[in-house]
Amino acid sequence: MNVSKSVANCGGFPQFPCSKKIYLAGKLPGVRVPFREITVSGGHEAARVYDTSGAWTDADFHGDARRGLPPVRAAWIEGRNDTESRARTPSREETLNQENLATWRLGANPPSAGRPVLRAKNSPVTQLHYARRGIITPEMEFVAIRENMKLQERGADGEMSADGERDALRRQHAGEPWGAAMPREITPELVRDEVARGRAMIPANVNHPEAEPMIIGRNFLVKINANIGNSAVSSSIEEEVEKLRWATLWGADTVMDLSTGKNIHATREWILRNSPVPIGTVPIYQALEKAGGRAEDLSWEIYRDTLIEQAEQGVDYFTIHAAALRRFIPLTARRMTGIVSRGGAILAKWCLTHNAENFLFTHWDEICEILAAYDVGVSIGDGLRPGSVADANDEAQFGELRAQGDLVRRARAREVQAICEGPGHVPMHLIHENMRRQLEWCHEAPFYTLGPLTTDIAPGYDHITSGIGAAMIGWYGTAMLCYVTPKEHLGLPNRDDVREGVVTYKIAAHAADLAKGHPAAQYRDNALSKARFEFRWEDQFNLSLDPLKARAFHDETLPADGAKSAHFCSMCGPNFCSMKLSEDVRRCASAKNI
Amino acid sequence: MNVSKSVANCGGFPQFPCSKKIYLAGKLPGVRVPFREITVSGGHEAARVYDTSGAWTDADFHGDARRGLPPVRAAWIEGRNDTESRARTPSREETLNQENLATWRLGANPPSAGRPVLRAKNSPVTQLHYARRGIITPEMEFVAIRENMKLQERGADGEMSADGERDALRRQHAGEPWGAAMPREITPELVRDEVARGRAMIPANVNHPEAEPMIIGRNFLVKINANIGNSAVSSSIEEEVEKLRWATLWGADTVMDLSTGKNIHATREWILRNSPVPIGTVPIYQALEKAGGRAEDLSWEIYRDTLIEQAEQGVDYFTIHAAALRRFIPLTARRMTGIVSRGGAILAKWCLTHNAENFLFTHWDEICEILAAYDVGVSIGDGLRPGSVADANDEAQFGELRAQGDLVRRARAREVQAICEGPGHVPMHLIHENMRRQLEWCHEAPFYTLGPLTTDIAPGYDHITSGIGAAMIGWYGTAMLCYVTPKEHLGLPNRDDVREGVVTYKIAAHAADLAKGHPAAQYRDNALSKARFEFRWEDQFNLSLDPLKARAFHDETLPADGAKSAHFCSMCGPNFCSMKLSEDVRRCASAKNI
Repeated sequence: MNVSKSVANCGGFPQFPCSKKIYLAGKLPGVRVPFREITVSGGHEAARVYDTSGAWTDADFHGDARRGLPPVRAAWIEGRNDTESRARTPSREETLNQENLATWRLGANPPSAGRPVLRAKNSPVTQLHYARRGIITPEMEFVAIRENMKLQERGADGEMSADGERDALRRQHAGEPWGAAMPREITPELVRDEVARGRAMIPANVNHPEAEPMIIGRNFLVKINANIGNSAVSSSIEEEVEKLRWATLWGADTVMDLSTGKNIHATREWILRNSPVPIGTVPIYQALEKAGGRAEDLSWEIYRDTLIEQAEQGVDYFTIHAAALRRFIPLTARRMTGIVSRGGAILAKWCLTHNAENFLFTHWDEICEILAAYDVGVSIGDGLRPGSVADANDEAQFGELRAQGDLVRRARAREVQAICEGPGHVPMHLIHENMRRQLEWCHEAPFYTLGPLTTDIAPGYDHITSGIGAAMIGWYGTAMLCYVTPKEHLGLPNRDDVREGVVTYKIAAHAADLAKGHPAAQYRDNALSKARFEFRWEDQFNLSLDPLKARAFHDETLPADGAKSAHFCSMCGPNFCSMKLSEDVRRCASAKNI
Repeated sequence: MNVSKSVANCGGFPQFPCSKKIYLAGKLPGVRVPFREITVSGGHEAARVYDTSGAWTDADFHGDARRGLPPVRAAWIEGRNDTESRARTPSREETLNQENLATWRLGANPPSAGRPVLRAKNSPVTQLHYARRGIITPEMEFVAIRENMKLQERGADGEMSADGERDALRRQHAGEPWGAAMPREITPELVRDEVARGRAMIPANVNHPEAEPMIIGRNFLVKINANIGNSAVSSSIEEEVEKLRWATLWGADTVMDLSTGKNIHATREWILRNSPVPIGTVPIYQALEKAGGRAEDLSWEIYRDTLIEQAEQGVDYFTIHAAALRRFIPLTARRMTGIVSRGGAILAKWCLTHNAENFLFTHWDEICEILAAYDVGVSIGDGLRPGSVADANDEAQFGELRAQGDLVRRARAREVQAICEGPGHVPMHLIHENMRRQLEWCHEAPFYTLGPLTTDIAPGYDHITSGIGAAMIGWYGTAMLCYVTPKEHLGLPNRDDVREGVVTYKIAAHAADLAKGHPAAQYRDNALSKARFEFRWEDQFNLSLDPLKARAFHDETLPADGAKSAHFCSMCGPNFCSMKLSEDVRRCASAKNI
């Protein structure tokens, strides 16, 4: 088998070898859930894996970035008949930068140009609204199938039978879910119930029909977010769209566009039209640009218009730092590293200049009304998170966490889906306290943390310092992990950094899924380990999170095709390969009937 | 400040910028403990860090690999007057390979050629022997100073005073040591006591006087080991010596030479003469080479001669798989990945072929006598460790762990320093059980684990899958972490892989030290975070674990010298730098007297 042929370069992107896109149908109309199926050699069972890459990796899809992705959710949204459409006014920025945009390769007109924007007619159009009314939406069924990978239809867990590969692959340790209600099977009704309780969020703006539904909640697979976005110093729109596709190729479940440079509106537009995953933003960044970069010139009006502008574009969730209250700011004065959240620092400056309470807090109910009209989820920011291990778990941080909890309650009252953001920099032994308090104070709203970094001494390796903390807090119950790249603290990540950050966080999330006992978690470990033990090198590569790197590393020392079926590698050589010896032991024991 | 000048290339090795070697004297004669002192800009306090790189990074040392390192411990060993010298017989391999060796660049004669080997006259010459008699050896005082970095003489921990940088740098969270007896200060008497109880080991073969003493124990800094060594497939002696120096430059506390290819004896000789850190080996590998690569042809005699040969050369600790007992082998039959320890697989094959008990177990007392005569520590191998998450914590693994405990007791009875090896592949929620049982069954002997890897699905990233588990088990009480490189499962690591593996494990070990509350741990985090907050970019780079990478990453987008004093970086740009905004907030608050 010469697999290298299928490592084709597809529009500048590698494809995973021996993989194809498959779709599993649901019962509701139009529910067609994508998976990547990895063909395994020698008649072994093909492995299905969760796939965030969208139609871009479907061989039958022939679109391109200029035309954007198909609106897979459009019919469901329309079918609910609770939105109305209106024309979108071009943003100030679009007008200003027309010339600039025209020079961009993808063209000045994104696929949505002229497409009307949707907005709720009367009641909220949120998944929470439907869930509370007992309605299982297509989004919910989609999510349930996606989370299970329909493993249950392929056979239940069980002890390994004498010759039973099938059972062996389904073996799984009982997890330790720390009080989470990890189910044996994820049903559409369970999804509905979790959304209704506010324990999970399905980010699904009615204006982002291109997104494939996913769920963020403690009783589901741990998700990861990748940040992209330009800054004033570097990067272009085109690069950001490529980073989006790149990040989702490697497994990002959501992407946040944190652009702060030029063409913020246009960058976001192109990202949304090409994104198979929900997109998050921090609207205060664009609002600050509109205020000329001066925090003190921000106003509720500028911010509100920005929320509406972005909601109309289709952003699926907003980070809003409404819990960074004025009274907490003095608590940061004695810190080692002050305020390290950009949003938190902007608002602190505003509060002090105007000697007034954070305007996001004072306008919270109005904010929630806007969000409910588009089903934009809210991720309540932690503007006062610690920026060093010294500052972890201090009064400022926990004061804000309590305030986040109050805002969760108020958001739910308006049927807005809400999650809470968490730290940051926290030494290992203080991580669990974060989770415990968040669950208690924030009414089990999903927790969404940045790492946390478990030490400050390794800039250049902060994907690792934080991957440790991320895996742990994911196990303890965090629903989504915001990735950290090797460039954290040092500069804007490039493509390699994004890949390294995403794969590191897939590892952390998966390690957490294994530990908490998600029912579909251990299958892939089993399949890969079995391939490894049986010296199916190609399968071992193909089943891994990064088949290209695994193969390249192997081939550095043993590039010959024959080495792909050899019962050893260059690490130990033939006489010292424990797995080869272990094969001998089994043969020997079997011959002697031991 | 143009620091790039000091990033000189020293014999092919980079030097850390703004760093110099300093020595702190002890009270006992000849005790001179090395540290790296990092100069910090603008009158800020210089930072001392633990330094494993030996004289190679001392600007006043002008030796080279041909001549080896100075025998810093020779006078202490001689002064004890309990060893006698005898001529070493050239090994069979030395004779066989004379011609081969002569062609090697460093020359055929290592610095020890003609140097007599030492061996105990009567009683054991182990640090455990002295410790039990109440003797504080120079090695023990050396270790105490090294562990503390004499922080206590520079001021106690305390709350930050109004303007007190000194206090700020010494702030530290109370740790959670999981029952370990983490002291406020590490005294020579504490070191002696821990060694006497068998809770710590100072690997210190009388024939390896070049090594700078270090300690492996739960109540000390978590240590890391780097594996090097050639295999039949690739690598040369010279490369291995370079890997040794490279690994210790980045922070390896011990190095294991796992060579299994050609010139095993000579490779080890050159490694030992050039190593400032203790060297470990797995003698069964060389014994197997002597047996023509056939496990069934191994014998106690071949193995015993190999132990003596390596003890005479100066190996500081041996991994011995004496607890992989015959009765446990059938318990591996239903495993996903059988036996994955090379030593374990070799011995299992031997046991089955001969239908006899593991000869390392049946000769344990004789083994201990040999070890005691040179002060070679024993690391009791875990030959049946799990090789996949599916196999974690099973009967085979825990059966062997209990047997390891019995061997610890018997080693101690002969005053041999003993530690225990642990897994392997273990999902996060099953890690703590490993530590708990090891402490209980192995009488608090230091635990030395390989990772563990928390998932199997990421070959190419197993430094990360295992770094997560390593940090956690280090926090729970593991004394030393055996590194895993990105090439694990795929091939022999090269120089870049060694660097990546060592730095990842320094992160894991340090995160564990912070979490368990080692009294010298948080200083470096504080110093680096303070530099970060104050936009002292050069200091931030220099204080980090890998200053070269941190600088290179920063300079990718902002290479100009001016950017090194800028109050922002390319990640967020000037208007969105939270730390810059946070500075403004502090100024503003201070102006308003808040």
